[in-house]
Amino acid sequence: MSGNTFGTIFRITTFGESHGKGLGVVIDGCPAGLEIDEAYIQSELDRRRVGQSKVTSQRQEPDKIEILSGVFEGVSTGVPLAMILRNQDADSSKYDNLREVFRPGHADAGYHTKYGVRDHRGGGRSSGRETSARVAAGAVAKLLLKKFNITVTGWTHSVGNVEGKTVDFSVIEKNIIRAADPEAAVKMEKYILDARKEHESVGGIVKIKAQNVPPGLGEPAFDKLDADIGKALFSIGSVKGVEIGSGFESGKMHGSESNDMVSPETGTYITNNAGGILGGISSGQDIDITMAVKPTPSILKEQMTKDIHDKVVPIVIEGRHDPCICPRIVPVAEAMVALALADHYLRNRASRI
Amino acid sequence: MSGNTFGTIFRITTFGESHGKGLGVVIDGCPAGLEIDEAYIQSELDRRRVGQSKVTSQRQEPDKIEILSGVFEGVSTGVPLAMILRNQDADSSKYDNLREVFRPGHADAGYHTKYGVRDHRGGGRSSGRETSARVAAGAVAKLLLKKFNITVTGWTHSVGNVEGKTVDFSVIEKNIIRAADPEAAVKMEKYILDARKEHESVGGIVKIKAQNVPPGLGEPAFDKLDADIGKALFSIGSVKGVEIGSGFESGKMHGSESNDMVSPETGTYITNNAGGILGGISSGQDIDITMAVKPTPSILKEQMTKDIHDKVVPIVIEGRHDPCICPRIVPVAEAMVALALADHYLRNRASRI
Amino acid sequence: MSGNTFGTIFRITTFGESHGKGLGVVIDGCPAGLEIDEAYIQSELDRRRVGQSKVTSQRQEPDKIEILSGVFEGVSTGVPLAMILRNQDADSSKYDNLREVFRPGHADAGYHTKYGVRDHRGGGRSSGRETSARVAAGAVAKLLLKKFNITVTGWTHSVGNVEGKTVDFSVIEKNIIRAADPEAAVKMEKYILDARKEHESVGGIVKIKAQNVPPGLGEPAFDKLDADIGKALFSIGSVKGVEIGSGFESGKMHGSESNDMVSPETGTYITNNAGGILGGISSGQDIDITMAVKPTPSILKEQMTKDIHDKVVPIVIEGRHDPCICPRIVPVAEAMVALALADHYLRNRASRI
Amino acid sequence: MSGNTFGTIFRITTFGESHGKGLGVVIDGCPAGLEIDEAYIQSELDRRRVGQSKVTSQRQEPDKIEILSGVFEGVSTGVPLAMILRNQDADSSKYDNLREVFRPGHADAGYHTKYGVRDHRGGGRSSGRETSARVAAGAVAKLLLKKFNITVTGWTHSVGNVEGKTVDFSVIEKNIIRAADPEAAVKMEKYILDARKEHESVGGIVKIKAQNVPPGLGEPAFDKLDADIGKALFSIGSVKGVEIGSGFESGKMHGSESNDMVSPETGTYITNNAGGILGGISSGQDIDITMAVKPTPSILKEQMTKDIHDKVVPIVIEGRHDPCICPRIVPVAEAMVALALADHYLRNRASRI
Repeated sequence: MSGNTFGTIFRITTFGESHGKGLGVVIDGCPAGLEIDEAYIQSELDRRRVGQSKVTSQRQEPDKIEILSGVFEGVSTGVPLAMILRNQDADSSKYDNLREVFRPGHADAGYHTKYGVRDHRGGGRSSGRETSARVAAGAVAKLLLKKFNITVTGWTHSVGNVEGKTVDFSVIEKNIIRAADPEAAVKMEKYILDARKEHESVGGIVKIKAQNVPPGLGEPAFDKLDADIGKALFSIGSVKGVEIGSGFESGKMHGSESNDMVSPETGTYITNNAGGILGGISSGQDIDITMAVKPTPSILKEQMTKDIHDKVVPIVIEGRHDPCICPRIVPVAEAMVALALADHYLRNRASRI
Repeated sequence: MSGNTFGTIFRITTFGESHGKGLGVVIDGCPAGLEIDEAYIQSELDRRRVGQSKVTSQRQEPDKIEILSGVFEGVSTGVPLAMILRNQDADSSKYDNLREVFRPGHADAGYHTKYGVRDHRGGGRSSGRETSARVAAGAVAKLLLKKFNITVTGWTHSVGNVEGKTVDFSVIEKNIIRAADPEAAVKMEKYILDARKEHESVGGIVKIKAQNVPPGLGEPAFDKLDADIGKALFSIGSVKGVEIGSGFESGKMHGSESNDMVSPETGTYITNNAGGILGGISSGQDIDITMAVKPTPSILKEQMTKDIHDKVVPIVIEGRHDPCICPRIVPVAEAMVALALADHYLRNRASRI
Repeated sequence: MSGNTFGTIFRITTFGESHGKGLGVVIDGCPAGLEIDEAYIQSELDRRRVGQSKVTSQRQEPDKIEILSGVFEGVSTGVPLAMILRNQDADSSKYDNLREVFRPGHADAGYHTKYGVRDHRGGGRSSGRETSARVAAGAVAKLLLKKFNITVTGWTHSVGNVEGKTVDFSVIEKNIIRAADPEAAVKMEKYILDARKEHESVGGIVKIKAQNVPPGLGEPAFDKLDADIGKALFSIGSVKGVEIGSGFESGKMHGSESNDMVSPETGTYITNNAGGILGGISSGQDIDITMAVKPTPSILKEQMTKDIHDKVVPIVIEGRHDPCICPRIVPVAEAMVALALADHYLRNRASRI
Repeated sequence: MSGNTFGTIFRITTFGESHGKGLGVVIDGCPAGLEIDEAYIQSELDRRRVGQSKVTSQRQEPDKIEILSGVFEGVSTGVPLAMILRNQDADSSKYDNLREVFRPGHADAGYHTKYGVRDHRGGGRSSGRETSARVAAGAVAKLLLKKFNITVTGWTHSVGNVEGKTVDFSVIEKNIIRAADPEAAVKMEKYILDARKEHESVGGIVKIKAQNVPPGLGEPAFDKLDADIGKALFSIGSVKGVEIGSGFESGKMHGSESNDMVSPETGTYITNNAGGILGGISSGQDIDITMAVKPTPSILKEQMTKDIHDKVVPIVIEGRHDPCICPRIVPVAEAMVALALADHYLRNRASRI
């Protein structure tokens, strides 16, 4: 009800703030009998970690995962699986000047209005750091999906006006942009560093593909698979747009173009404009998702904003921020899609007697 | 859990199929003391109704609402408010040939895989007709929002390659396209009718604006206001993309461009790239949403598809279908946004002691 | 959230008032492929119906069920299964004097305080008539359970100080008390009719037994099977106590007495003090439940109460009321237990990978 | 869905096992602006703690609370409030012999059947130790209720056949039984110690009274206040019966006896058979609850049970167990009632526009 829980059967509740004691997540509904590979969970967190390259924040956080419950002798027991990450490099001093001032493009003013009281350090709960708990939970969801051969892969499709032209999954983790096109990656990196030099940040577009999703996942009416994936991705700060399959291009198509045809020869689909979801139910084709990521709102350039007394004041955001959030949002987006799929996988078990 | 419920406090559960006895909705969580203007609910349903113009389906359904419970002497009593609409012009004969064949671009194959048993008549539960129940519930949500001066307005922004250039709310209900640009409306109408002549359908883009939404609505992490709006809209069949504020344009921006600045003179925001939502919480600015609508998948042109025996077969979809769903999806989109806002309005009451 | 929904997977939402248009229920989560025997649902409603004997209310309501959705060619389709019952013999005139006066022992004052507005006719939503929708939904749950050989049987154990001594399921539906002891049934009938003559009502105790429940149903911590059964039964108006197994007797026992022992010879349990539930999980033994039912609060005797102006006033409740609610609460209690079991049966499918 | 969450607005999710790393709870929905008195939370945990007297388990656990999130400068911020307790004196060696044997009266066999995999040490998640997390959350709920003057007090009413005759709240925390009758407390203590000498345990009855609960709390149909309290209490292991107000005595009453009358002189209620709840809604009178607690199932006496190979085997339960759980279940029961009340207090804010 208060917004920190996602999923219905495979259900996670996250907690923690950017500069509090740490972040955490409780997974209630992880089925028993799943081998919990802690090293894998850690490796997923490492993909989201700050300080991993010159295009990410230079804050240093080991993001060392501790599993508190729900695992016995390496295997999930069916009871809540709780995990925490302690904050270690929280430098709250950089935020003293923000106690009474709202950063542009952030949730600061919203939290102040909503709650009256606010942990201003690093954005508190509204910090992107909150997503580390999602990645931990998403790693468990991926372990579950792996049992059924389902994979979820994300990559940076474009940064500013630099767009990837090719898609090669094998290169994604080999460049600091997490682009699937190695040549574009080089240009994207330059684009980001140029922006940072000018005290700017840049936006981009991320794509996610889920493969081997069996047909039949998703529920009627409101909990359509695309509705839950849409929610999952819009729940990530900075995401301003989501497309499934052909997305906004669909708005320009004719019916016979948009409908995916079956080849009479092979019996397989020729196109995938639907992005693997028809009427909210997975079709068995790849699930193709695109999302728009706005530029990191925290920039060194002076901006005009308001304070808690509703006065207009200038602001310069110090602290350590990502000049482009795309490389680090990739594992978060994958996690959210994996969580939605794991949940719908289990939900589907109740569809027939 | 099974997907037919939306909302947490202002919570609706819908039921019914295209060619069954009718459609219905139970609103559990409508606060007591709201005047329930039945004529207004009916007028909203009339906006979504089939047969209202030459660009909509020619099926004739009065969509006459009956309130079954929850209202006493014209006022909501706080207990479940149930409403039903009886189907009257369900012509199932047109669907006999679809008992074993899956229509391209529809949920037919998905439902078959998922449930094993399927009401094939008009798509059963997966029919767009299901949204009539949402519009009835959305009308009640709008009545609630009206008490707090909040309005939700939708319009057709583009159809195929014809885009609206101006936005004048006063013309929306005066053209059959529900465009906000009267000149574009004329071109859109021609575009649609041309397509229909060629046994085609066309997609489009719809915009929704919510005004006077107070700051502070939305919940942290997963139930961000944009996440719930995103889910609300993706839960409508045919929607393939959703944007908040600048949407995909954000991916090309720099931080200082994307962040909405306050005018030092007036203290008001100069831009609204955020679309009225920052960090998942309403900012007090207008909430601006754009969504992509794919072409109606049911077309008269012959297409290749599969049947329940996994055989590739040709199909021609008869029946009475909208050549472009945009004009009729506008009230549905408004309803879904209104439901999300009403819910978050009530949820917000628990944010402080 | 607003209290009219029960269950998580097999989830029902009920609506309607005593003197409104009717009662209804939406089952969201009935798995596809279940034969929906409408005559059976009707027969269950007939067991709860008013006017069935001289110990029940003389209001005449056919309680004719209409299935609105979710069933195609006699089989559940997995989408919401909605059912309604129209009110026909609502005589609201008897309630005019209750518009401003609160009946003792009823929810009248509570609803007035809570909602400000109130449908006073027959108690509105707080009427026992609300349970007819539960019985309809419970009948579907029983059809589902029957597939897995699970049965739920209730009976009147005692009325006032007349207690049943034997338990013979075959006689329950053969006496108007729904007692399992035919000799006690005769005395109970006399006890009730004597009370009615003196313008009184009487309480009683009802027992429910669920058989063939497989071991392993129930969830840890809060959604223990007994917790959900306890909630299910306390949600029925007039229920003031619930026991599982030995219940309050357990408070007087020693550990070696209370623990159910296994016979070394047969390997089966010798006792069932646990009532078939240990640590919230079904053990495979019968689930034995006892519940206390208070006397119908509506009596012809003059009583002192308050009105909406907080003035103390005398009241005489006319209308048609059950002198003892036990015979008609039996099918309601069965329905609620069946709903809890059906839900946990389906929930359990997600317990292992 | 998987059972480890309680509440709808003031919603808690607990995790942890008896012999794992520790126990914890996330409160999602604690309103912002509440002073979080950590010393008070600790004091509540100390009341539940093991080793506090000679009638409780001799395991030594400091149960030192650590608040991980949701509190800033001593005040709740409206975001998830997470707390953990580390296990310190977990002696798992005593449980080695239980890896393949199910303890009588416990959930062991149920968990084995349900999940296939099981943390057998101290009962794992099914241990009473799980309730420490509830007490921590309940303490926060009590802090919230205190703001509105609402109190919740529990005490041991009887142990075996020794019943309290008087109720004096001021003595409850002054005797190790937590009885409200100091003379009975002495006899109860002797009763318990005698039982322990014979390697036995004993059951008892606990009462809880909530005072100053405003009228109007509770929701219609299924989420009646008594239904949610009933569930709350049945969710505590060892509870086999729950009564509201007159409870099972109601089954023997006549209507005019059972209905609570208003005094024409004072305008106040003369009796409280309803236990403060009518039709599921609080009446403004005290909420009076009674619950039956079975004897601790872990006893030193040899018992017959089954192992994972379905073989009947003798068992002697070593380890450190409470000879009577009543003194320590009192704070747990208070916590659960406080959680139900806090939740319904906040839910009620949505009842009117």
